[in-house]
Amino acid sequence: MPVLLNPDRAPSLSELLRAIPGGLVQKIVPGTGQWDNPVISGIGSLANAGSGEISFIVHPKYLDQLAQTKACAVIVLPEIDEQLSLDPGAAPFARVVCKHPYLLYARIAQWFDWARQSARETAIHPTAVIDPSAVIAKSVTVGPHVVIGPRCKIDAMTQIAAGCVLGADIEIGPSSLLHPRVSIYDGVKIGARAIIHSGAVLGADGFGFAPDPTLARGAWGKIPQLGSLIIGNDVEIGANTTVDRGALENTILEDGVKLDNQIMIAHNCHIGAHTAMAACVGVAGSTTIGARCTIGGASMISGHLTIGDDVHVSGGTAITANVSKPGRYTGVFPFAEHVDWQKNAAVLQQLSSLRKRLRKLEKD
Amino acid sequence: MPVLLNPDRAPSLSELLRAIPGGLVQKIVPGTGQWDNPVISGIGSLANAGSGEISFIVHPKYLDQLAQTKACAVIVLPEIDEQLSLDPGAAPFARVVCKHPYLLYARIAQWFDWARQSARETAIHPTAVIDPSAVIAKSVTVGPHVVIGPRCKIDAMTQIAAGCVLGADIEIGPSSLLHPRVSIYDGVKIGARAIIHSGAVLGADGFGFAPDPTLARGAWGKIPQLGSLIIGNDVEIGANTTVDRGALENTILEDGVKLDNQIMIAHNCHIGAHTAMAACVGVAGSTTIGARCTIGGASMISGHLTIGDDVHVSGGTAITANVSKPGRYTGVFPFAEHVDWQKNAAVLQQLSSLRKRLRKLEKD
Amino acid sequence: MPVLLNPDRAPSLSELLRAIPGGLVQKIVPGTGQWDNPVISGIGSLANAGSGEISFIVHPKYLDQLAQTKACAVIVLPEIDEQLSLDPGAAPFARVVCKHPYLLYARIAQWFDWARQSARETAIHPTAVIDPSAVIAKSVTVGPHVVIGPRCKIDAMTQIAAGCVLGADIEIGPSSLLHPRVSIYDGVKIGARAIIHSGAVLGADGFGFAPDPTLARGAWGKIPQLGSLIIGNDVEIGANTTVDRGALENTILEDGVKLDNQIMIAHNCHIGAHTAMAACVGVAGSTTIGARCTIGGASMISGHLTIGDDVHVSGGTAITANVSKPGRYTGVFPFAEHVDWQKNAAVLQQLSSLRKRLRKLEKD
Repeated sequence: MPVLLNPDRAPSLSELLRAIPGGLVQKIVPGTGQWDNPVISGIGSLANAGSGEISFIVHPKYLDQLAQTKACAVIVLPEIDEQLSLDPGAAPFARVVCKHPYLLYARIAQWFDWARQSARETAIHPTAVIDPSAVIAKSVTVGPHVVIGPRCKIDAMTQIAAGCVLGADIEIGPSSLLHPRVSIYDGVKIGARAIIHSGAVLGADGFGFAPDPTLARGAWGKIPQLGSLIIGNDVEIGANTTVDRGALENTILEDGVKLDNQIMIAHNCHIGAHTAMAACVGVAGSTTIGARCTIGGASMISGHLTIGDDVHVSGGTAITANVSKPGRYTGVFPFAEHVDWQKNAAVLQQLSSLRKRLRKLEKD
Repeated sequence: MPVLLNPDRAPSLSELLRAIPGGLVQKIVPGTGQWDNPVISGIGSLANAGSGEISFIVHPKYLDQLAQTKACAVIVLPEIDEQLSLDPGAAPFARVVCKHPYLLYARIAQWFDWARQSARETAIHPTAVIDPSAVIAKSVTVGPHVVIGPRCKIDAMTQIAAGCVLGADIEIGPSSLLHPRVSIYDGVKIGARAIIHSGAVLGADGFGFAPDPTLARGAWGKIPQLGSLIIGNDVEIGANTTVDRGALENTILEDGVKLDNQIMIAHNCHIGAHTAMAACVGVAGSTTIGARCTIGGASMISGHLTIGDDVHVSGGTAITANVSKPGRYTGVFPFAEHVDWQKNAAVLQQLSSLRKRLRKLEKD
Repeated sequence: MPVLLNPDRAPSLSELLRAIPGGLVQKIVPGTGQWDNPVISGIGSLANAGSGEISFIVHPKYLDQLAQTKACAVIVLPEIDEQLSLDPGAAPFARVVCKHPYLLYARIAQWFDWARQSARETAIHPTAVIDPSAVIAKSVTVGPHVVIGPRCKIDAMTQIAAGCVLGADIEIGPSSLLHPRVSIYDGVKIGARAIIHSGAVLGADGFGFAPDPTLARGAWGKIPQLGSLIIGNDVEIGANTTVDRGALENTILEDGVKLDNQIMIAHNCHIGAHTAMAACVGVAGSTTIGARCTIGGASMISGHLTIGDDVHVSGGTAITANVSKPGRYTGVFPFAEHVDWQKNAAVLQQLSSLRKRLRKLEKD
């Protein structure tokens, strides 16, 4: 649906595919008539793509939508291509045959995203306040009202958008992008190609207090958070997400971790490579999560746990114990019409006695 | 409780009510003595209003508080007025009879909120950084350290407070208010009379990734989010709430949507007119919610669902399936003292086998 | 693990302990050889402390780690000291005997945190925009791009870091610290020694609307939030946490309240002294919580409730009714492998009928 390039700037299908890295395309089947090698000015879903756009089908269950699509080109799985080959002429669009249509869609979207952007000026905005001891590579862009503290090191090609505030001794690798209004506390290290969204707060104090009866009954004494936060390469962090620094050790996000918006990672956590979390997840302190996990939205993970590799947590689940075995774990309370819920919830609190009564009946 | 206007600037009851639009008042019953037409310098609850303040009673269950109130005037339902009429002199305060006392309270509060504010200067603060191609109406106020990108259009009377950062190609309708430190990404469109609270992030990237085994085992390739975010008229968005842009289509908030703080609306969602969500709600991607729904705090709504009009979700509920029928839906796990919970939660995981045992007994 | 001070700047054990207030130390048992009175350059966990660091043991279950530690000094409970005394020479490290090792660790960490910081300049950064009517004590530090509105009063020694925006009529007590990018709305009052983390929004409008059928079917009329937010002394508020102002009365956080990140406190709430909440908690409007409570992460507390003193809520629990009795309360739905959850969740919705069937069997 989004018109990304004017037709006079848009590539032909073959030009577009030549620009996409990775050898994903198995073959191209020309469309009928003018769609032999159509000009591609954007990308859309099967249902909403216009006639100047490419689309994609990731599963045979969408064949109905494919029959209706207006797209001039469609990325298809080999098995769908075979099916369409049986009735030549039925599908007028060009077909791009590919075993990973979703990934090819991602790459084409990346190309359009790059192509539609006007050239960014590489510049330090005059309103930015940068400590003289900071080391900023020449190709770095720094937006208006940015603040960069002492001894920071910002690597080549990195962009720091308006209103970001970086404390002291922070390192950011090359080709990273900080969207506007990101906060980074002292000493945080971030790898290459990071994308940090607006409102994220990285390296704030973990929540650490010791009961201090010398102050007042029930009072808490602050435990300074002396560790830091270390973030690997290719990490994306969503809007208003917070990742705290460690108490004595470091909090760690390994390479390729992807965090959605409004997530909270508490102090001393260690999140393994390529683990992805949907929005509103909370991970309590000192928990280790393995590699390649997916954590569904609004899940909560208790502190001091160890979750293994390849664990998949359904949205809304509270993980309250270690999980070593790969697999899918769930714990969502089923919803119902309010009146039905009331009846069942009332009985829930008698489960233990219900079981006893059942046992008694079984014995009798 | 809050003293809103000094008595010498405050209106009499009749002056105040003449200033309130909408013909909500059925009649005014003068109070006794000096409260015939009292000066109203503020508005308070029945329990806390002072003698210079107006209050309101929305339900007969608060009649006890009404008997004790110090307020010089009270907004009452017709049926409560009738009851009070039976014993003239018992209630010394003036009575404002109205079928919608809560709405009249809202309108009077709006009047005081307006009256107590000093006149705002219409001005562009000299520290604001505004791209020369942006079109800013003459009556717009722009605060310190604001950043407004290329080709933005800001309509008449709109106020953009300190530290807001607007990307490129953003449109904001007339009479809107952006509180300090709001972030808006490129291309977002907002209607008239919007109120956006501090820390909100509008139009950040949705969470879209395709598995990309060509990078590393388990690695994710970013799917650029090419859609935008379109917001209707009269929308209010709470502090630190995030609403993401769409992947290929737009994320849409229709007219009159009200979002509390710390809410997350994921990419491609469509929220119907006048739907209100309390704080900490998360709505996963591509979900459509109808008009006039209310979503209780800390609820979570899964992705790719369709929720109809006039659906009311209780706080803390996980909605994991389509809901077409209007009504109230609930799914909160009941809390208990920890030791009782332990017993019942343990049995919960045997429910399926309990049912089998019960069936067996029934057959025997 | 973190090296906090170079050895040439680091104190000896006896110098360090003399600098710690409170008379917590019962006795010091010198270590063997050069560890008679070692130089302490940092603090670490038993497992990770280096040979120039002090560590601590809070529970006998960590005696295995104690046996392996490289730390040159360890804070120990009296009973652990006694045990170690039985075999002199087995433990080469110096022992600091103390009944509250966790609190002593907190105090030592505070000392190092203070000692490692370079002297801060007391200054108003020239890019800060401060209303001429604001009263700023001489020892206050104001960072770049800060905005301070009319009639604010900022007390001695307080630090306001980069990018904070303060509205009008705000008061902040002495020795407080606002990290970068905090928003405070008009009229909020904060006591002494507050620590407010980045992205926090204090005093935004509560979520108050009256149905207004005169605008449109289902439309909402805004209820201005005329109350304020009053915060006591020694309060810490985490990153991206939001605390709303009251509708007619004030929202109140009493002395010593500690809020972690991403917490939402709605309008008119009253949180008692020394109550601590872990991350991602939501408290709905007009709820009163007593003193010395602890609220586990991702818990949600409904509106208009009264929770007494010394109530401890487990993480992930939904509190939907008043709680007057001190104690621990829990309501987490247990997670399981997805297939097992499916079976049990299905039966959950038939609990009420299961009970009926059981009753029938019992009668038969």
